[in-house]
Amino acid sequence: MLADLLLPIAAVSDSGLKSIALGVGAGLGSLGVGIGLGIMFGRVIEAVARQPELRQEITSIQWLAFALIEAVVFYAAIFGLIAFFL
Amino acid sequence: MLADLLLPIAAVSDSGLKSIALGVGAGLGSLGVGIGLGIMFGRVIEAVARQPELRQEITSIQWLAFALIEAVVFYAAIFGLIAFFL
Amino acid sequence: MLADLLLPIAAVSDSGLKSIALGVGAGLGSLGVGIGLGIMFGRVIEAVARQPELRQEITSIQWLAFALIEAVVFYAAIFGLIAFFL
Amino acid sequence: MLADLLLPIAAVSDSGLKSIALGVGAGLGSLGVGIGLGIMFGRVIEAVARQPELRQEITSIQWLAFALIEAVVFYAAIFGLIAFFL
Amino acid sequence: MLADLLLPIAAVSDSGLKSIALGVGAGLGSLGVGIGLGIMFGRVIEAVARQPELRQEITSIQWLAFALIEAVVFYAAIFGLIAFFL
Repeated sequence: MLADLLLPIAAVSDSGLKSIALGVGAGLGSLGVGIGLGIMFGRVIEAVARQPELRQEITSIQWLAFALIEAVVFYAAIFGLIAFFL
Repeated sequence: MLADLLLPIAAVSDSGLKSIALGVGAGLGSLGVGIGLGIMFGRVIEAVARQPELRQEITSIQWLAFALIEAVVFYAAIFGLIAFFL
Repeated sequence: MLADLLLPIAAVSDSGLKSIALGVGAGLGSLGVGIGLGIMFGRVIEAVARQPELRQEITSIQWLAFALIEAVVFYAAIFGLIAFFL
Repeated sequence: MLADLLLPIAAVSDSGLKSIALGVGAGLGSLGVGIGLGIMFGRVIEAVARQPELRQEITSIQWLAFALIEAVVFYAAIFGLIAFFL
Repeated sequence: MLADLLLPIAAVSDSGLKSIALGVGAGLGSLGVGIGLGIMFGRVIEAVARQPELRQEITSIQWLAFALIEAVVFYAAIFGLIAFFL
C-alpha cells in the first residue's frame, strides 16, 4: 500500500555517496599524478637535450620516478576502495 | 491517487550520485593531464629550439611521455566506472 | 486539489544531478586544458623569440601539441556524456 | 489556505541543479583560461623585452594563441549549456 | 497554527541554488584571472627592470594583456547570469 509507494523515496543511499568518495577521490589523485608526471618528463627532455651522452643514466632515473609517482594514483584509489567497501 | 502524486518525490536516486562520481572524477583526471601535457610539450619545444639536431631523440621521449601521462586520465575514468557500476 | 500542490515537490531528479556531472566534469577538463595551452604557447613564443630561424619546425610541433592537449577536454566531455546518458 | 502554505515546498527543482552545472562549469573553464592567458602574455612581454625587433612575429603568434586558448572557455560553456537544456 | 509550522519548510528554493551557480562560478573565474594577472604583471616588472628603455612598448602590451585577461572574469559572470535568469 502506501509503504510500497513510499519506498522509492529511499532511492538515495549510502552506496551512492560512497561512489562519489571513490570516483572523486581517485580523480583528485590522478590530478596530482598528471601534473607531477608532466613536470618530471619535461625535466627529462630538458636534461637529454642538454647532455645527450647521459641519456642511459637519465632514463633509469626516469623509470624509477615514473613508478614512484604513478603509485600515488593507486594510493588514492585504494583508500577510495576502502571507503567504498567499509 | 495519492500514490501517483507522491511517486515523483523518489526521482533522485543512487544512479544520479554515481554519475557525479564518474563525470567529476574523469574531469579531475583530465584537469591534471591537461596541465601535465602542457608542461611536457613546452619543454619539448624549448629543447628542439635549443638543439634542433637532437629532434629525433626528443620526439621518441615525447611520445613515450605522452602515452604515460595520457594513461592517467583513463585510470581516473576506470575508477569512476568502477564506482558507477558497482 | 492537494495533488496539484504536492506535485512540484518531486521537481529534483536524477537528470539534475547528471547535468552537474556533465557540466562540472567538462568544466574541470577545460580548466586543465586552458592552463596547459597557456604554458605550451608561452614556450612557443619564447622559442621563436630566441631562434626565429627555426619557426617552421616549432610551428609543426605547436600544432601537434595543440591537437593532443585539446583532445583532453573532449575525454572529460565524453565521460561526462557517458555519465549523463547511462 | 493549506495550498498557499504548501506551495513553497516545491521550490527546489532540476532547473536549480542545472544552473549550478552551467554556472560552476563555465566558471571552472574561465579559471583555467585566466591562468593560461596570464602565462602566455607574460611570455609575450618577456620576448618583446628581449628581442624588440621581432615584435611583429611575436604579435601574430600571440593573437593565434589568444584565440585558441579563449576558445576553451566556450567549450566549457557549450557543455554546460548542453547539460542545461538537455 | 498549522500554517506557522509548515512555513519554514519552504525556505530552500531554486533561487538559492541559482545564487550558488552565479556566485561560485564568477568566483572561480575571478580566481583564475587573479593568478593570471599576477603572472603577467610579474613579467612586466621583470622586463622593465631588465630593459628600462623599452618601458613604453612594454606598457602598451601590458594594457592590452590586462584588458584581454580581465575580460575572462566577465565570461564567467555572463554564463552565471544566464544560469541565474534562465
